[in-house]
Amino acid sequence: MIEGLKKIGFDADDTLWVNEVFFRETEQLFYELMADFSDKETIAAELYRTEINNMALYGYGVKAFILSVIETAHKVAGGRLPASVVGEIVELGKKQLLQPVELLEEVEETLNALVGRYELILVTKGDLLDQERKLASSGLEHLFHHVEIMSDKTEREYGKLLRHIDVLPEEFMMIGNSLRSDILPPLALGSYAVHVPYHMTWEHERVEEPVVNSRFYTADSLWDIIGLLP
Amino acid sequence: MIEGLKKIGFDADDTLWVNEVFFRETEQLFYELMADFSDKETIAAELYRTEINNMALYGYGVKAFILSVIETAHKVAGGRLPASVVGEIVELGKKQLLQPVELLEEVEETLNALVGRYELILVTKGDLLDQERKLASSGLEHLFHHVEIMSDKTEREYGKLLRHIDVLPEEFMMIGNSLRSDILPPLALGSYAVHVPYHMTWEHERVEEPVVNSRFYTADSLWDIIGLLP
Repeated sequence: MIEGLKKIGFDADDTLWVNEVFFRETEQLFYELMADFSDKETIAAELYRTEINNMALYGYGVKAFILSVIETAHKVAGGRLPASVVGEIVELGKKQLLQPVELLEEVEETLNALVGRYELILVTKGDLLDQERKLASSGLEHLFHHVEIMSDKTEREYGKLLRHIDVLPEEFMMIGNSLRSDILPPLALGSYAVHVPYHMTWEHERVEEPVVNSRFYTADSLWDIIGLLP
Repeated sequence: MIEGLKKIGFDADDTLWVNEVFFRETEQLFYELMADFSDKETIAAELYRTEINNMALYGYGVKAFILSVIETAHKVAGGRLPASVVGEIVELGKKQLLQPVELLEEVEETLNALVGRYELILVTKGDLLDQERKLASSGLEHLFHHVEIMSDKTEREYGKLLRHIDVLPEEFMMIGNSLRSDILPPLALGSYAVHVPYHMTWEHERVEEPVVNSRFYTADSLWDIIGLLP
């Protein structure tokens, strides 16, 4: 049982609502558009390399992703890239940005059980506008005391957040599906962290080493968090 | 002389540092890349139409702009769009994102004269990561008590900001180059606003009607603000 907790941070993408699936769907359609030029594995490897190379410049989110998809198309097909494929990639990006928000299981029950007992904070990264749109259409906005959209979820950014919401590290718990973004930085600051794995994780968010920390928990589902709290 | 002021908000792009010029430079290079397909005026009109159509979905900033440039290239050249032009547009976007920050005149003097007497707040819109990068490399970050990066500078967002920084409308003054984004929304809330025009304004930010409001001021240069304050 965790005592002394005041505020709980929730990741959004793939913790509260579906996200990674839409990236995988766009990628799949992109591989099909490019089938005349290379095989899926080669294109996927080139896309990942391009995304990582562009990360410092573009950051996270759908617009960054689509720009990297276009760059990859040009790299793979070279001068043979048809204009129509470029047009279709732009449309795939728009379609992805317009995906309706699908809440994951137990999200509403869990947030409703916690609100009032703790201050709930939404902590997410990616496109500012896109995350605001998703939050607004999620129906969850009123449950959060504060919403923080970061360009990247680093220890430094979490440190700024804790000062901003005026809470000590040991009074804060972060909940999310990414070990790299939601778990390791808060643990390093001395906060609690609960990993709720999602069935699909982007390669970039994976962490190889097991996490060893007395403030670290893993939960099979979001509702399991309730059992950790007084 | 304005009495009772506690906090002053500053727009960033084209108020503290050069911004619009870089968009115009990228556009110029884009028109040259497309010279085989249409004249500059036709392409410019199509680009503006595309940007406005995409605004609700993409928001502001360089990544949104470049996606609209690519879409415009496809619309204008159709099936004849060369792959090389797509590759070059992507590179133009990266080059723009890497532009070094150029402070405008009197920015450092003015901020240094005001800091300590008022809480200074940076209020900007666009890509989160790009605005953070510019602020970090501007050398001005330490002068600001709070930094707010909005997806759009609407009356609603300014209202949220004023509550967040815990200030009454009449204790707040906003300074910026865009009537639409920096001046009209704060005036509507009952705050002061100072327009410091920049020699170049994006069509979308222009306002046709003259602004009439007893809390509205125009300054030829940023330093002129000092004369408005006790």
